[in-house]
Amino acid sequence: MKNELKTNPKESLPKFRVSIDHGIAIGPGKADVLEWIATTGSLAAAGREMGMSYQHVWMLVKAMNEHFVEPLVEKKRGGSDRGGASLTPTGQQVLELYRAAQRDAADAIGKYMPTFEKLLKDKPQIS
Amino acid sequence: MKNELKTNPKESLPKFRVSIDHGIAIGPGKADVLEWIATTGSLAAAGREMGMSYQHVWMLVKAMNEHFVEPLVEKKRGGSDRGGASLTPTGQQVLELYRAAQRDAADAIGKYMPTFEKLLKDKPQIS
Repeated sequence: MKNELKTNPKESLPKFRVSIDHGIAIGPGKADVLEWIATTGSLAAAGREMGMSYQHVWMLVKAMNEHFVEPLVEKKRGGSDRGGASLTPTGQQVLELYRAAQRDAADAIGKYMPTFEKLLKDKPQIS
Repeated sequence: MKNELKTNPKESLPKFRVSIDHGIAIGPGKADVLEWIATTGSLAAAGREMGMSYQHVWMLVKAMNEHFVEPLVEKKRGGSDRGGASLTPTGQQVLELYRAAQRDAADAIGKYMPTFEKLLKDKPQIS
């Protein structure tokens, strides 16, 4: 799964949230959680990469699994609580949608950069 | 100037930053500072609206005034340090550019919402 994901969670892209009545379905933090789970294959390792406790990662994953029509993350069968985890096909789809929307937003913002550049003393970049 | 600005600083729009080598030229916080100065006509009042000290607002304004080719904010002539302030034409242009880029980014993201909606149990919105 690692190789199918084309973005780096640390890459700077515009930030937005998809909200529902009772919280945030997916936003920058949850997208990074999904991406680190896909990259590391582990909730605990994803937490370490993000400076988050295992409990916090699991809380975010549980919320995502409940808000979407299908779970986004599944723990590996037979694993312990701290064992492996991976994205389901829906999880991968949601992550790819979020990243694609971020990239399109970045493209939309990019059209304004030449004007910002004229107004700034130094060369700017989107971050 | 108040009536020429069409957005509410508290409105949720995608967040991004225009960075330069030595910092952030403009991002969500600095855009809100500009907008509150335009709305209230005062650095101190802008700070109160944002829960920021006058000193913090002034530090952000000074940075913006230095990074752009012309100042974005001017203190009212003859005013005290805590006196009135307003956006220069360049300040208003920069704020309008930032908001326009945010709105275009929101439109780009909006195209993904029907797909997110199909994947979620509840109706989502961008925030």
